[in-house]
Amino acid sequence: MKELFISTLVGQVRALDQFGTWTNRTDEDILKEKYVKTKEDLKNIPVIADIDEMQIQDIRLIYQSIALAFETKTGIMCSVVMEMSHEGFGRVVVIADKIVIVNKFFKDAHRHSFRTYEKLEEEGEKMLKSVMEIYEEYKK
Amino acid sequence: MKELFISTLVGQVRALDQFGTWTNRTDEDILKEKYVKTKEDLKNIPVIADIDEMQIQDIRLIYQSIALAFETKTGIMCSVVMEMSHEGFGRVVVIADKIVIVNKFFKDAHRHSFRTYEKLEEEGEKMLKSVMEIYEEYKK
Repeated sequence: MKELFISTLVGQVRALDQFGTWTNRTDEDILKEKYVKTKEDLKNIPVIADIDEMQIQDIRLIYQSIALAFETKTGIMCSVVMEMSHEGFGRVVVIADKIVIVNKFFKDAHRHSFRTYEKLEEEGEKMLKSVMEIYEEYKK
Repeated sequence: MKELFISTLVGQVRALDQFGTWTNRTDEDILKEKYVKTKEDLKNIPVIADIDEMQIQDIRLIYQSIALAFETKTGIMCSVVMEMSHEGFGRVVVIADKIVIVNKFFKDAHRHSFRTYEKLEEEGEKMLKSVMEIYEEYKK
């Protein structure tokens, strides 16, 4: 049984696979391709570079999945608002009702990634735990 | 003595007047040019059209002024996150600490305007009052 964050993220990513390109690939394989970059990979990505729409979308999906997983757990609607410059500077907030449950800044967003698949899983669950705590603290 | 919202907005708009184009024009005159469109004016703006960066910036300044005016009143830092598609669909949130004090959706943002200068003043003060109330309700 997969953790909620990962299964939501897989669902989101697969939902965008309009042409069935990923049908025969495993979930882990797809998420690795999108989100995992080793130190070695990062060496080949310039520090200063433009970010493309696809990468912005991929980052957005992570927060969209946090929002959806939070909805699944609590039944409370949330939404993602993201601002990203073409240089990869940006910000994302996830809001539930009147509460900001995620507020994250980016720089070098074109390098945004996780070192291993396990790290992605772990970070996602950690974020999900934190949003629940914040919501509990601030909710009316 | 001008109301806080209007004086903040004037400050923001004038701060962007790099080349001194507006130095000899009154505050009211400048804000009217940017934000006031009569019904007659609106008739000449197509319902479906693209929004340009300048207009997006102008709308942003309104919320930036709400954020700044709130900071002036309370000493609490806030920030604006805005997402706007080129078709003029979008969303803006203003957040103070972990609280969403403004959450507004746009459609036809290229037509975003106020009918009179007085209306702009009034709406701004109303928004400022509402953000104070929301903050008071949710703050820890």
